[in-house]
Amino acid sequence: MTIFSKIINKEIPADIVYEDELCLAFRDISPVAPTHILVIPKKPIRSMAEVEREDKELVGHLMYTAARIAKDVGVSEAGYRLVANTNDEGGQSVPHLHIHILGGRSMTWPPG
Amino acid sequence: MTIFSKIINKEIPADIVYEDELCLAFRDISPVAPTHILVIPKKPIRSMAEVEREDKELVGHLMYTAARIAKDVGVSEAGYRLVANTNDEGGQSVPHLHIHILGGRSMTWPPG
Repeated sequence: MTIFSKIINKEIPADIVYEDELCLAFRDISPVAPTHILVIPKKPIRSMAEVEREDKELVGHLMYTAARIAKDVGVSEAGYRLVANTNDEGGQSVPHLHIHILGGRSMTWPPG
Repeated sequence: MTIFSKIINKEIPADIVYEDELCLAFRDISPVAPTHILVIPKKPIRSMAEVEREDKELVGHLMYTAARIAKDVGVSEAGYRLVANTNDEGGQSVPHLHIHILGGRSMTWPPG
């Protein structure tokens, strides 16, 4: 069980900005941009590498929800970056799929 | 019409690595990692900010396809990063939705 499962189960606190039956979104505790929010599925999928064909609509929901949250918090028009890290070289820190929303500043290139 | 529409229509060449009825994937002409591939929908959606509810499954398909391509080109086990830039501060360069697959090296943090 990861720290994200504990956040989903409300066993540990988080600054939650959105929740529905499929996903949860909360602010990253180590933000690297003025807006830095994580969107995670409630289903414990380890990473993008473990996404199965039947999870496509769920992953689409995560991305769509991320874009909606970006609008809600006011970074969409100026712009934002969505990032999903997989495994070590991707920089994945928690083995539960999560999409980073990064905004509120100009994101540079390359992306890490 | 963007340069990506011209690639979809085969009006200009690209190093295509995958194609199906919904999407196209090709190598970035300015790679910032040993593996740097773009996955784009054939439907001309401007960015994540313009994704509608009915496009959820399509976006899920793009992400799922990106993860499959990462496996096919051999970067999945070591790890990779998926990035989608929206509007200016996100660093979006072409106004046609695209997901970057970046792998073959350790991606650093923050992601730009």
